[in-house]
Amino acid sequence: MDDGTQFAIAPIQGGVASPEGFRTSAVHCGVKADASALDLVVLAADVPASATALFTTNLARAAPVIVSREHIDYSGGTVRAIVVNSGCANACTGPAGQAHAKLMAAETAAALGCAPHDVLVASTGVIGVGLPIDRVVAGIRTAVPALARGHGSAAARAIMTTDLFPKECATTVTTPRGAFTVGGMAKGAGMIEPNMATMLGFLTTDAAVSPAIIRRALEVSARDTFNAITVDGESSTNDSLFALASGASGVAIDDATYPALLEAFLTVSRELALGIVRGGEGATKLIAVTVSDAESVDAARQVARTIANSPLVKTAIHGADPNWGRIVSAAGRSGPPFDLAKTSVRIGGILLFDRGVAHDDRAPRAAEHLQGSAVQIDVSLGFGRDAAATIWTCDLSAEYVRINGEYRT
Amino acid sequence: MDDGTQFAIAPIQGGVASPEGFRTSAVHCGVKADASALDLVVLAADVPASATALFTTNLARAAPVIVSREHIDYSGGTVRAIVVNSGCANACTGPAGQAHAKLMAAETAAALGCAPHDVLVASTGVIGVGLPIDRVVAGIRTAVPALARGHGSAAARAIMTTDLFPKECATTVTTPRGAFTVGGMAKGAGMIEPNMATMLGFLTTDAAVSPAIIRRALEVSARDTFNAITVDGESSTNDSLFALASGASGVAIDDATYPALLEAFLTVSRELALGIVRGGEGATKLIAVTVSDAESVDAARQVARTIANSPLVKTAIHGADPNWGRIVSAAGRSGPPFDLAKTSVRIGGILLFDRGVAHDDRAPRAAEHLQGSAVQIDVSLGFGRDAAATIWTCDLSAEYVRINGEYRT
Repeated sequence: MDDGTQFAIAPIQGGVASPEGFRTSAVHCGVKADASALDLVVLAADVPASATALFTTNLARAAPVIVSREHIDYSGGTVRAIVVNSGCANACTGPAGQAHAKLMAAETAAALGCAPHDVLVASTGVIGVGLPIDRVVAGIRTAVPALARGHGSAAARAIMTTDLFPKECATTVTTPRGAFTVGGMAKGAGMIEPNMATMLGFLTTDAAVSPAIIRRALEVSARDTFNAITVDGESSTNDSLFALASGASGVAIDDATYPALLEAFLTVSRELALGIVRGGEGATKLIAVTVSDAESVDAARQVARTIANSPLVKTAIHGADPNWGRIVSAAGRSGPPFDLAKTSVRIGGILLFDRGVAHDDRAPRAAEHLQGSAVQIDVSLGFGRDAAATIWTCDLSAEYVRINGEYRT
Repeated sequence: MDDGTQFAIAPIQGGVASPEGFRTSAVHCGVKADASALDLVVLAADVPASATALFTTNLARAAPVIVSREHIDYSGGTVRAIVVNSGCANACTGPAGQAHAKLMAAETAAALGCAPHDVLVASTGVIGVGLPIDRVVAGIRTAVPALARGHGSAAARAIMTTDLFPKECATTVTTPRGAFTVGGMAKGAGMIEPNMATMLGFLTTDAAVSPAIIRRALEVSARDTFNAITVDGESSTNDSLFALASGASGVAIDDATYPALLEAFLTVSRELALGIVRGGEGATKLIAVTVSDAESVDAARQVARTIANSPLVKTAIHGADPNWGRIVSAAGRSGPPFDLAKTSVRIGGILLFDRGVAHDDRAPRAAEHLQGSAVQIDVSLGFGRDAAATIWTCDLSAEYVRINGEYRT
């Protein structure tokens, strides 16, 4: 019997502009040197939208993070627009940087006819360089009148820095009350580490959601998606994940329909988050590290994260070397309880280390798995508990070194 | 007025065999494939020596770590010899691995005419591969009769794995009671991270030191030397630091002469530890990260370590890019209290970020400093306290990726 909580999810082509009630605009304003590169986005809701955001845990917070946090606190979770620039992080830029971030909000608000605190701000790019604020302001004045439905792909391209490809996706959700849509876009590349130390991410939906419920959905879905990825263990100064709900679909989210919203947030967030890892600086492989049978879920997460951030594990996988010893060593130094004699390691499902005993005859089969672009590492800690977690990462290549040794120079 | 505690330290050519009362022997036994590569060392004291050791904090402890710890606990801090093999870590090798480590001690003891628990064991090399124990035993039987003074350099070469160069040094200490010598050798390369997660290190002295005092001297000197370096943030399964005192010089260490012993331990340990970083896998630069004006010394150490392990900082320095923004970002995510507006960053003494204000006009001078092989990074956290710490690391190069992607394959 249908109790009204059944729902169906279907992915669609699209992104942040797919849900009803949102318009986007992307222009080149001149933060990036390349005149053909988009570098400014305005994402606007037709009506005041329920909104929430998660920000970096890095104490060196960039100006847009400080300003966005103030604005969302002030408005109590209602937002009309987000203005984003790429190419300059507006981080470590002092009082001038904060004035610039506030001006970005104020100019966007003036063009839209709303209050400055109804606009959030995000920036991504090089740290420690001041924004060319005149160009950004001119860009905002060009972008806002050009706001339109269906420019989501341009927006997803415009927020890129060293990203290899744009990351956007969308899904429709059908419920007994009607259908709604969730869309999203993200940028990543370097400085990617869990705990909202990650990247810029934007989720939109035309479901009707209260600020409290959209916050819960974002926090829960981020835990196993945006907060479960790492490229290089670096928490950045700017990382922000936003969610906006326009309500335009007329589908109200309450206890009955919350699972549908959460599932859609998870689906969209997982695809965006894995896209960030796949497009990690210099990445050639997507690596899923699953730790099971741990003392607790937190312990499983910590062990998985240590393995996922181990340069020796990441370089071995880059070289297609099924070096399970480095995986065991990383697990052993990660902090939570660990017993070599209880620990098992699988690479691509192939059991290479079974509760203290090596099976190196199977290494060639595991090496074959490592030739592929999707790598699965499973570590069982053998504590006989139902506590597991997965962290996604990428391999560490010489290309990562090249990109980051030459980024500014 | 000379109160009997004055001393003078002078570096000498030499290593672990320089102090009186020690003999070494290094042979090729066949753990390494290359027949010209030394891979087995016996370091023996002529008489039972006061001994102490610090072992890895990694819970995936290798067999030689488990056995050495048992032996030193059992003997109460008296040791006759250490037997070391390179090329195989004897880690994650289960009960067979522990039997092999015990056999190494027993064979060495039999050849020397002492008890097995008077012999410590160390191994370094690939994890998860069993020792070719017959070859190791044959090697021990060849090595022990060949024990002699003055083979320290061969021993320092024999413990190398991916090390670029041997690391050994020695110093004489002149006190009112007479002179004594401290020598040492170490191996490093990969899996280098503070907290005795480091490498193999061996200190010898012909001072007469009780087990309790040699332990104190080793713990104190390791804190700011072997435990203040990092290559890749990886704590290994095998890391061990040993100190042996033969007493052959006749100079007794008590409260009056302890400062002389400690200073000599610090001098030798610092040179060996910095040698490990200089010879880090793929390293082209030695980087000293000094954090001052922190809330506490522990906080300073944690911030310095986070900066030193940041792949973005290490790649920037590899590319001679004075990217202070990455340094600030790493400090901000390191955990201890942090305030952007109080923080200053110097590279090569050049103030690039002064309590929140960037001075990018000075970047070219800092870039010049980064062209050199010794890099100094100074971060002041501005808390107005006398709390500082230095961590040494190296840059992250494409060569690190190459070495570790190809180590076994």
